[in-house]
Amino acid sequence: MRRLAIALVHHPVLDGTGAIVTTAVTNLDVHDLARSARSYGCTDYFVAHPIAAQRELVQRILSHWTEGSSGRRIPDRREALTVLRIVDSLTAAVEALGGREAVEIWVTAARALGPALAFGDARGRLEGEGKAVLLVFGTGWGLAPSVLADADALLEPIRAATTDYNHLSVRAACAIALDRLRGAR
Amino acid sequence: MRRLAIALVHHPVLDGTGAIVTTAVTNLDVHDLARSARSYGCTDYFVAHPIAAQRELVQRILSHWTEGSSGRRIPDRREALTVLRIVDSLTAAVEALGGREAVEIWVTAARALGPALAFGDARGRLEGEGKAVLLVFGTGWGLAPSVLADADALLEPIRAATTDYNHLSVRAACAIALDRLRGAR
Repeated sequence: MRRLAIALVHHPVLDGTGAIVTTAVTNLDVHDLARSARSYGCTDYFVAHPIAAQRELVQRILSHWTEGSSGRRIPDRREALTVLRIVDSLTAAVEALGGREAVEIWVTAARALGPALAFGDARGRLEGEGKAVLLVFGTGWGLAPSVLADADALLEPIRAATTDYNHLSVRAACAIALDRLRGAR
Repeated sequence: MRRLAIALVHHPVLDGTGAIVTTAVTNLDVHDLARSARSYGCTDYFVAHPIAAQRELVQRILSHWTEGSSGRRIPDRREALTVLRIVDSLTAAVEALGGREAVEIWVTAARALGPALAFGDARGRLEGEGKAVLLVFGTGWGLAPSVLADADALLEPIRAATTDYNHLSVRAACAIALDRLRGAR
């Protein structure tokens, strides 16, 4: 079974007009993705933000749950946050996993942006042996084209069987993606 | 295909010691579960809270997205929130769906609490004809025993294939449950 890590990217991502922006950290993204990552056996959850003050905010949230009173109150939460790694860029996350040659980057998007890897096939690939896989999620309106261009695979968009409407939060999309890739079947 | 609705219950739920409590509303629960519900074709997302001031808070969040500037900025978000219904209890949610005889109540729990309905079987039941199904999620440490006792089915706990650790947020658990029940396969 291959090593699986996730990354949440705050730059470069798109805004609603298609411009490339940097988004602010959302408190619950820190907890929720850590909890999902830990529950599905990911070794790392990288929060990537280029602004030092925003990385310090994430560090404060982390400390609250690992060293503060809330960590004592909810030990399972503390356990989840052990997978959190704070980095300044997606490149730094890749370096932490051994460098670009050691990692397969799988990107996600809410819309169909090109030839995509089906979740069933991706699940099979993860069960075999091979490079570590870094599953990348964008904030805002999604990952910038430069991130997509450097990826080894684009996962298919998440869709319901019953409707074409899709406006999932990144917290929901990450949970569903991990369950499709590693949920008990 | 049967009608599917979800409910998020703030009372009666358990705290970390097993006592029955009322939890506070979490802002992002309002958006995230609405977005997941709408994306998976649920007709209704009931937020159940016994305290009027907390229901008014949910109404203010709803109005912000449906009538305020944010609704104009993100029309998909406004669309998601059209499924939101604010009620004072789970009983009121059941009444809104036609009353106890017209509804099957399916409850969820993070732990194995008894004989459970497997997601695959539940998915099949939803594809057929029958009563409306109300899928119920608890806040805090989960639904109180009285809610479980009145249910028609308990869904199996969500588990990964790779680990027994489970500490998903309700936002993640709801998204995964809906994807297992109604995701494209």
